[in-house]
Parts: sequence; structure tokens; C-alpha cells
Amino acid sequence: MTLTTIREHRCFGGVQGTYTHPSRATGTDMRLSVFVPPQAAEGPVPALIYLSGLTCSDENFTTKAGAQRYAAEHGLIVVAPDTSPRGEGVADDAAYDLGQGAGFYVDAIREPWAPHYKMYSYVADELPELLAGAFPLRAGALGITGHSMGGHGALVIALRNPERFASVSALAPIVAPSHVPWGQKALAAYLGDDPELWRDYDTCELLAGRSFPGTILVDQGEADAFLAEQLQPQRLVDACAAVGQPLDLRMRSGYDHSYYFVATFVGHHVAHHAAALARPGAAE
Amino acid sequence: MTLTTIREHRCFGGVQGTYTHPSRATGTDMRLSVFVPPQAAEGPVPALIYLSGLTCSDENFTTKAGAQRYAAEHGLIVVAPDTSPRGEGVADDAAYDLGQGAGFYVDAIREPWAPHYKMYSYVADELPELLAGAFPLRAGALGITGHSMGGHGALVIALRNPERFASVSALAPIVAPSHVPWGQKALAAYLGDDPELWRDYDTCELLAGRSFPGTILVDQGEADAFLAEQLQPQRLVDACAAVGQPLDLRMRSGYDHSYYFVATFVGHHVAHHAAALARPGAAE
Repeated sequence: MTLTTIREHRCFGGVQGTYTHPSRATGTDMRLSVFVPPQAAEGPVPALIYLSGLTCSDENFTTKAGAQRYAAEHGLIVVAPDTSPRGEGVADDAAYDLGQGAGFYVDAIREPWAPHYKMYSYVADELPELLAGAFPLRAGALGITGHSMGGHGALVIALRNPERFASVSALAPIVAPSHVPWGQKALAAYLGDDPELWRDYDTCELLAGRSFPGTILVDQGEADAFLAEQLQPQRLVDACAAVGQPLDLRMRSGYDHSYYFVATFVGHHVAHHAAALARPGAAE
Repeated sequence: MTLTTIREHRCFGGVQGTYTHPSRATGTDMRLSVFVPPQAAEGPVPALIYLSGLTCSDENFTTKAGAQRYAAEHGLIVVAPDTSPRGEGVADDAAYDLGQGAGFYVDAIREPWAPHYKMYSYVADELPELLAGAFPLRAGALGITGHSMGGHGALVIALRNPERFASVSALAPIVAPSHVPWGQKALAAYLGDDPELWRDYDTCELLAGRSFPGTILVDQGEADAFLAEQLQPQRLVDACAAVGQPLDLRMRSGYDHSYYFVATFVGHHVAHHAAALARPGAAE
């Protein structure tokens, strides 16, 4: 697997790059943005994957969140993949919440999505391997986070792969896609109508049978327009309580669903992952 | 003068808003983005105007620079106006470096630009008055900065209005527009071919006859693709030296002209203005 450089910029003493590579999971070229902090010049460092929300590409977080400053302070590589396969041969939908830009971090099994929409395998399996081969990652020191649909992806992927992801957090995540409109639409399209097949992609359902070996950090704006209908953080509180999963849910008065919310709190998330990933032998 | 709110978001404990208002200078509706820090709830605070570069609107800096974090730390209002008048009745040019998005912070006197392209008067005169009426600005505590074409605008406007602007800085500014292609094209179009008329809009020319009562802070990337042809910071060094103008020019190894450069160093600029504007009686 090889990365092709689209562009690189010096940023906070490190390098912010955008790359593309042929993906075996999606069968397409996938773009990703990677910040490598100055500490990586001294040796391998921990890394954090950030999964974006509906309509986003690798660019939104990279240009808008200001996470590079915190990553440079803590010495973390930060990786923002795209949210779906893209391109002319890739199925799409006119709606913003299905198809390109809305892969929902699942492996689709229904047509027309099945051939390329394998974002679960891409992020959970292919991306860690790709990153380890291309950047100075410290073995076992990989965390995952995300926003909205990407928060859903981060939680699901961490819960199902705790041996690979040593820390997890989320900003305004979709925690129970089986029970909310965004999730029901996407899961029905990508997986079909049988809700049994949705359980593997539903954080609250997954928590019924397993937990994560570390605290889950979640920030959620109280003025988020999607709070009551799509996000429903109380479901996560209940699911964590039922299995004794440590959860640090921080409700934020006045904050909405935008990148101004993400920018305000992403520093806490970078610090959370840096602390968790600094533990010797994390996730090994 | 009244502002119409387009949107507001909570951000770093303050409010990031986008507004529009009818401008007497340009004769059009002008958009601007304003960050009001949490400290403004306690009473009037200093303010910093940031002028953007070619092709930008009020949005680029607001979404990409991450300045809100620093403004919230230091208690500064930060204001990003648009870079030109816009709209259907406003003259434009197909090139990126003339017309809409490229007002160059001059008062145009040539057709077809003269009716609306009055960005000098808009920023130097109308905007301070508008802001003082609409936001909790501390009297006399107004600074100005900018990037590229906006750095040119900030330096010119501060040098010509030291009674109104108590602090000035710039990121990768055009310091001698009379002598570089971007400036020569814009000044000829907006003002005509007589270089005598360009002097009032050329930082290095202005410095021949005056100085600014405070240090000018400038950051400049050494890997900036426009460094040699368009920016030429040595001209500013020489012009400042000739009149004893204090200049703190920081050449930054490896940095280019992008917002990754702006994001990396804007914190130093916010701190520079906060310190200068904290002096009791600044600019009064």
C-alpha cells in the first residue's frame, strides 16, 4: 500500500498533509488528511483517528477544528479519513444522509452500495495497517474519535476492536442508530430491513454484550438541533450504566452541532487520548 | 446603522456570529463575522479587526484560523469583514486578483470600480463606528491585522489612522504594492496609472513620511510561494529602518502562504494586540 501526496503544509511545527491511496476495502482511491507533530522526528508517537460526520470529507475537520495545535502540544498524529468511497463508479443518492459523504462506517451488503461502501473494514482494519506502514506510529497506541455520524463510527469500531484501539471518545455522536431517523435510513439502505443485522453497528446494542477497557469521553452540546431526535445521549448513559462501562459525558450549555462546538472541545479529546495512549503497553 | 444576524454559534465560551448591514461606504450590504469573548459579559473589551487576503470572504479566517481560542483567552473581540463589496450590481472581473474578493482596501476612483469599491473608507472609518455601536468595545482599544492583501490593508490603515488604531500587525503582507504584480494590477485598475496616487496605499511609501506609535509585528513564511515576487519583506525592513519604526519581523522556516501558516501564528498576533491594547489610554 502506498500513499500519494496531494499536498503538505507546515503547521504548528509539524506537517499537515493530504494523501490518496488505492483501498482494498472500498475498491476505490481513498483520500485522507494526516497531521504529523514535531515530536515524530524523535521517534514513534501515538495516533488518533478522527471520523467526520454527514456531508464531510477529510477536509472539514482538518481545516476547521484547529486540532493541530493540541496534537503538536501532546505529540499525537491525527488522521482524518473521508466519510465514504467516492467517484464516478460509486453509487450515490441525492439526499445528504445517504451515499457519498454518508458511509456510516458500515460494511454494506445491499445493492447498489455493497461493492464499495465498506467503511467499517476500511477504518477498523485497513487504515491502522496503512498508517503503521506510512507514518511513525507507536505500536499499540492508537485511539479513535469522531463527530456525529463519525462519533457513532468511533464508538462502534472501538467497542468491536478493543485490541486495536486503546482509547475512544466522541463529539455529539449518534449512539443508537437503530432507534433514530438518520441511523434507520442508513442501516436499512446499507444492510437491509432486518434489525438483527443492525446490532453490530449500534453502540448501545453493542454495549449490552461488551464494554470498553477505558473511559468513554463524550461531549454533547445542549443547543444541538439534533439532540432530541437523532442523538439521544441518555440512551448511552443507560447502556453504559447497565454494564458498568465508565462514561464521562459532558453536556455543554449553549453549544450546537457545528464545527465551532468541535473546535471548542477537541482539545479535551486530544488530551484524553494522549493520556490514555501514554500508558505503557496500552492496547497490547 | 443596524446589523442583521445571519447566524450565531457558541464558541470557546463566547459567541461567533455572522452579520450583514447596509454600508454607506460601499453602497451595498456588507457581511462580517464577529467573535465576542466571554469577558465581554463583564464590560467593554478591546477589539481586533482581521483583514483577509485575495479570494477570501469573512468566512475563511473565521472557520480556518482558530483565533477564537486565543481571543477567548485574552478577552478580545475579533472582527473579520469581507474583502470587497459583492452582489449583482457590483463590478467584477474574471481574475481572482481583481474585483469581488479583491478590493485591496482602497477607495477606487476609476470606472467601473468607483461606485462601490470603497474598502479603505469602509474599514478605516465605517467599521470602527459600526462596531462601537453594536458590540461592547472599549473606547480607544482597537487593533488591526491581516493576511497577504489583508496585511497590506492593515498596515496602510493603521499608518494613516494611528489615532483610531492602537496596534498593528500582519501575516505575510504585501508591503510594497507599487512594486509587485498583485499591487500594480490592482492599484492601476482602481486608481489609474499615475503612481503618485498609489502612495497613500503603499506601506513602504507611507513609512517614508510617517511612523506608527508602537511595534509592527509581522510573521512571514520562508516557504511562501509568493515571497520573492509579491511580498518582499526586505522592503519593509528597509523602510522601517530608515525612519526608526520598530519592526518585529519573524521569518518562519518551512511555512507557506496558507491558513495553516495563519493558524500556527495567529495566537502570537492576538497576544501582541491584547498586550498593546491593555495599556490604559491606548490610542486616546
